[in-house]
Amino acid sequence: MDVQQQLEAYFRNKREAHLEELKQFLRIPSVSAVPEHASDIRRCAEWTADAFRRAGCEHVQIMPTAGHPVVYADWLHAPGKPTVLVYGHYDVQPPEPLELWQTPPFEPEIRDNKLYARGATDDKGPLFLYVKMIEAWLQTTGSLPVNVKFCIEGEEEVASKHTPGFVEANRELLAADVVVISDTPMKEKGQPAITYGLRGLIGAEIEVTAANQDLHSGVYGGGVPNALHALTALLNSFHSDDGKVAVAGFYDTVRPLSAEERASLAKVGIDEAKIRTELGLTELYGEPGYSFIERTTGRPTLEIVSVTGGFQGEGIKPIVPGKALAKITCRLVANQTPDEVMDLIDKHIASHTPAGVKAVMRRSLRGNPFLTPIDHPVMQAAAASYEAVYGKAPIFTRGGGSIPVVEVFSRLLDAPVVLMGLSLNEENMHAPNEYFDLDNFDMGLRTLALYWEKLGNLPK
Amino acid sequence: MDVQQQLEAYFRNKREAHLEELKQFLRIPSVSAVPEHASDIRRCAEWTADAFRRAGCEHVQIMPTAGHPVVYADWLHAPGKPTVLVYGHYDVQPPEPLELWQTPPFEPEIRDNKLYARGATDDKGPLFLYVKMIEAWLQTTGSLPVNVKFCIEGEEEVASKHTPGFVEANRELLAADVVVISDTPMKEKGQPAITYGLRGLIGAEIEVTAANQDLHSGVYGGGVPNALHALTALLNSFHSDDGKVAVAGFYDTVRPLSAEERASLAKVGIDEAKIRTELGLTELYGEPGYSFIERTTGRPTLEIVSVTGGFQGEGIKPIVPGKALAKITCRLVANQTPDEVMDLIDKHIASHTPAGVKAVMRRSLRGNPFLTPIDHPVMQAAAASYEAVYGKAPIFTRGGGSIPVVEVFSRLLDAPVVLMGLSLNEENMHAPNEYFDLDNFDMGLRTLALYWEKLGNLPK
Repeated sequence: MDVQQQLEAYFRNKREAHLEELKQFLRIPSVSAVPEHASDIRRCAEWTADAFRRAGCEHVQIMPTAGHPVVYADWLHAPGKPTVLVYGHYDVQPPEPLELWQTPPFEPEIRDNKLYARGATDDKGPLFLYVKMIEAWLQTTGSLPVNVKFCIEGEEEVASKHTPGFVEANRELLAADVVVISDTPMKEKGQPAITYGLRGLIGAEIEVTAANQDLHSGVYGGGVPNALHALTALLNSFHSDDGKVAVAGFYDTVRPLSAEERASLAKVGIDEAKIRTELGLTELYGEPGYSFIERTTGRPTLEIVSVTGGFQGEGIKPIVPGKALAKITCRLVANQTPDEVMDLIDKHIASHTPAGVKAVMRRSLRGNPFLTPIDHPVMQAAAASYEAVYGKAPIFTRGGGSIPVVEVFSRLLDAPVVLMGLSLNEENMHAPNEYFDLDNFDMGLRTLALYWEKLGNLPK
Repeated sequence: MDVQQQLEAYFRNKREAHLEELKQFLRIPSVSAVPEHASDIRRCAEWTADAFRRAGCEHVQIMPTAGHPVVYADWLHAPGKPTVLVYGHYDVQPPEPLELWQTPPFEPEIRDNKLYARGATDDKGPLFLYVKMIEAWLQTTGSLPVNVKFCIEGEEEVASKHTPGFVEANRELLAADVVVISDTPMKEKGQPAITYGLRGLIGAEIEVTAANQDLHSGVYGGGVPNALHALTALLNSFHSDDGKVAVAGFYDTVRPLSAEERASLAKVGIDEAKIRTELGLTELYGEPGYSFIERTTGRPTLEIVSVTGGFQGEGIKPIVPGKALAKITCRLVANQTPDEVMDLIDKHIASHTPAGVKAVMRRSLRGNPFLTPIDHPVMQAAAASYEAVYGKAPIFTRGGGSIPVVEVFSRLLDAPVVLMGLSLNEENMHAPNEYFDLDNFDMGLRTLALYWEKLGNLPK
């Protein structure tokens, strides 16, 4: 009996006990957004720490932050082998509206091989699989094929406010060769997916000043600069007519989409006609030469997200506005960096501001894009593990938004991040009747167990 | 002794009595904006009616409107002679802040040959001159050289809300060959001015709709139309880079500024450097080939007066806005008409709306431009009268704003309107310590008396 067969036997024998243990985890209403649940959050962190201890982890600690604590644990007895950092979160979304739940959110129940409870799939269920997977290795073989660290936060559902600072302050403790996270969806039941890229986000305000006050257009109209005319001209200059961003150098550092990536993204199966209909649009729009999924995940954007200028009340006040404000954001892709793109936009503004007005940009949001190349060995090992268990190679996909912690781990730990989906889009994440499909409970344990073995065979 | 000498003698002999009578008029706090003054408004209308009766007018009536009443009076015993309609207003601005008045606003006092009181120059003083001028004619010669009608409203300081409707409903009663109004400023003391043109005003809202809701830019950014991008492009298309309005046909019906007009406007003596400094501008701006006063009075404009789109709160919300709203106004000049220009803008929008979005324009404000040609005989007669009394030809100037009643009389009565300034810019109109310079009281009476004689010599 090889090691995977032993692990498989362990999972099979312990299935009922594991599910009971997961239900305990799910009974704790660790709602991070609601101050009344602070003691539940604390209790949940303690439960998580105990689970790591039971599994055989060491150095288990509940580490304070300015918000909810982080649970750390490790097992570091595989010298010469890679170190894997597993990230997850023990906090959950508020369960409201309660009346829409078939069974109460914090009274877990299995129906039709689905485990219903708040947090079942986001993220207690997937996180629990890692705990039981290493327990299986340690109970069965007495060791792990790799070194493992866990960083489990309690603020993911409130935007991980203190996590970047925590990671920065604990870079040595968390140092790893690869980061594995299961907090993204599969494509669909039976079809695993690995998210290999996410976009970064920068934001800025642009303020245009003409005269030092709004002016009566009966007295000044036609004879003085109008802040809204100038802002409009400036904003319009950010794009060429065909929809490309016209800021010089904007695309220079963009990693082109390879033929393999484009083929992989095409498999995501976006129905453009359906999107158009749902949004009430006559046509979609974007950079020429790219599909919707490519435009929204693999290409950068510059969006005007807000404009405010002139009289904002009811009716029409005939003034020449003295000031006008716009807010813009850019979704960035590898290998763009926030500062570089901000600098390019600043230069663009300096050279495109109409005569007679002043324009200033105030930089605000700043998040890096994330990408782990598909051909990276840790990605290929994950794909092979999925394929062996699910009978299907995962699709490699990209997200158009940001998951700040992913970017933070990638950047601060300088390690590839593997986003292995074990949830399904239909599992009512953030909604009533959240559940975790137990097929993924079973196959997820086996996939992770195999992945650990494969990671152990990679050079450190 | 010719008739003007007789009138002159009358004005000289009656000066003290006339000033006492004007003070009575000024003691009535006919503040139209404040409901508590409704009975004062009524009392002032009655005083005005009595003044007309004392002067020898007939058919004196206080005519109700949905707001404050209009005082009508006439003298129509000059068959074959032109009919002159005099417009003015008996209401005044609120006097606040009271503590800044040297003497109370409704206790008229003469200091240094200036009559201080709320309404002294706007418009009771100038209006009173017409009453005493016709009284002088009637008392001295027993008749007037022209037929006269008076239309004196009580809502000018609250935007003449019901006056257009009143004029429209009473077109026959008010029918005239020329309308004379003294409610505009002279250039400066000793230098009379006739305002021969005013700009019209149209306003419209332009709404651009892309998707049927704001969208998360992490999911849709780069792949769907952005309402603010489209609105920005559309608004930017309204002007060419050099500041001209780029709406096809926009200037086609504009009456060009003649060399004489440009020379006359140059005499207004606008200090462009001073304007620039006061407004904190590095440069003025506008249609190439025109001076500031030409741009702001003799040329039409299209101004973006307001834009609102995207998240209007603090901070930056990374969305793709589904809707965006702009408000625009145009200042029009003769011979543009509101509907014609609205139609041109509508066509422009239809042909310049970016693909994938809908744009609709909702028409709102609509006021015609006004112009009485400088060479019109009623204008030349007014100029000659000023010159004879003041020793200086008036300058002919244009205003960049609108005086709605002027446009209403011009349009509904189809008569030239003569705007004879008898006030000074420094007379604190709408401010504390309003006054009427009694040099203009004396010279105004003589100018109007002479003007009446000259109008009587014009063909009907």
